[in-house]
Amino acid sequence: MSLDKVKSLHFDVFGTVVDWRSSVISELQKFGKDKGIEADWSQFTDDWRSLYQPSMDAVRKGDREWRPLDTLHRESLITLISRHNISGLNEEEIDHLNKAWHRLNPWPDTVEGLTRLRTKYILATLSNGNVSLLVNMAKNAGLPWDAVLGAEPNQAYKPLPRCYLGNASYLDLEPHECMLVAAHNDDLAAARTLGYRTAFICRPTEYGPNQVNDKNAESDWDIVTTSMTDVADALGC
Amino acid sequence: MSLDKVKSLHFDVFGTVVDWRSSVISELQKFGKDKGIEADWSQFTDDWRSLYQPSMDAVRKGDREWRPLDTLHRESLITLISRHNISGLNEEEIDHLNKAWHRLNPWPDTVEGLTRLRTKYILATLSNGNVSLLVNMAKNAGLPWDAVLGAEPNQAYKPLPRCYLGNASYLDLEPHECMLVAAHNDDLAAARTLGYRTAFICRPTEYGPNQVNDKNAESDWDIVTTSMTDVADALGC
Repeated sequence: MSLDKVKSLHFDVFGTVVDWRSSVISELQKFGKDKGIEADWSQFTDDWRSLYQPSMDAVRKGDREWRPLDTLHRESLITLISRHNISGLNEEEIDHLNKAWHRLNPWPDTVEGLTRLRTKYILATLSNGNVSLLVNMAKNAGLPWDAVLGAEPNQAYKPLPRCYLGNASYLDLEPHECMLVAAHNDDLAAARTLGYRTAFICRPTEYGPNQVNDKNAESDWDIVTTSMTDVADALGC
Repeated sequence: MSLDKVKSLHFDVFGTVVDWRSSVISELQKFGKDKGIEADWSQFTDDWRSLYQPSMDAVRKGDREWRPLDTLHRESLITLISRHNISGLNEEEIDHLNKAWHRLNPWPDTVEGLTRLRTKYILATLSNGNVSLLVNMAKNAGLPWDAVLGAEPNQAYKPLPRCYLGNASYLDLEPHECMLVAAHNDDLAAARTLGYRTAFICRPTEYGPNQVNDKNAESDWDIVTTSMTDVADALGC
């Protein structure tokens, strides 16, 4: 089936566009060094990410009213500060650490790939990150979005259908005119069910050297690649 | 009072950033010529704009559920096609005309001014235009927004407070960290009441040669200028 009808590309961000793990580890290590705090910051980062999906569940189920990801990240951070026996941090320091997620670095191929793709398509975020997180990240990293959308403007965390369908609606497009670009098979599966076209970028070190999931395409996604520039090649940009 | 705390600039778009009147007249004239339809297209454009505020009223009051501006514009367009005794247009042609609002041209100072302002501030739309309208306009006109916000993501048309407060909230900022840039005194007054800082750009020909309103600053706005580049000068960009 042709991809000629695709008018907009929607991007998962954490892992697909930015290398959250090395970025957060680096931020935490620097903070620890500056403050004289010893901890296993790689483990701390992996623990923080492991609380990411569970933290959204109560909101997804409607047991809790809408909260932006910054709030959920901060709650997890406070849990982990205690669990890792770190003490003496003030509110400002905790806020600074929490905003490490606003300062994530792109993968080396990201900015070139997005810049090429933007010449032909509308580029939108389709992330669980909140708008301020994504806007600050884009300013820091030079990510050329046309629209910062996703969970917050749709008041629904992925993989709830409203998040994907709402993004299409904001752009006044049908789902088949949208393509999700993601490093995660489950995200692509949710999008495809709703009519989105799909592009998988394999990011085999997103979760570090011992990554288990998403090391291969688990379905016949429309595009299967290993970089954003390869997505641009595949779409003739 | 210092403007040092301002972190983001929020822009009224129709009239402030783009010259809607000459753009729409030009689109309509071209369409009329191509289709052999005679009409007073300047009057048609002014009539279309005169239905703009009334068309939002039922939504503002809650008598009608949320509708994006494209829908309201199209309803007004159909009313005016009949009133101007134009016949024979098909749905596709009506859609094309309605999307003239997606193809508005910037004022000559706009792109340079925004580009300079973006080096120091987060730039967001605070328009009653819907997201697809604003995104398509930005792609066409080269407007360098960091975030396309405003009425639709806040489900509230200006001057309802939720539109201004929601924009600040999306960026995780307090109202006093936001400045509205607008060519309309009433918009600035609504924003100031909520804590926004204010910049007035006088656009004395927005409504054509016989414009009555907004030819002068009607209050002591923080910045009073006649161009976007002057706003950049005033903010040291």
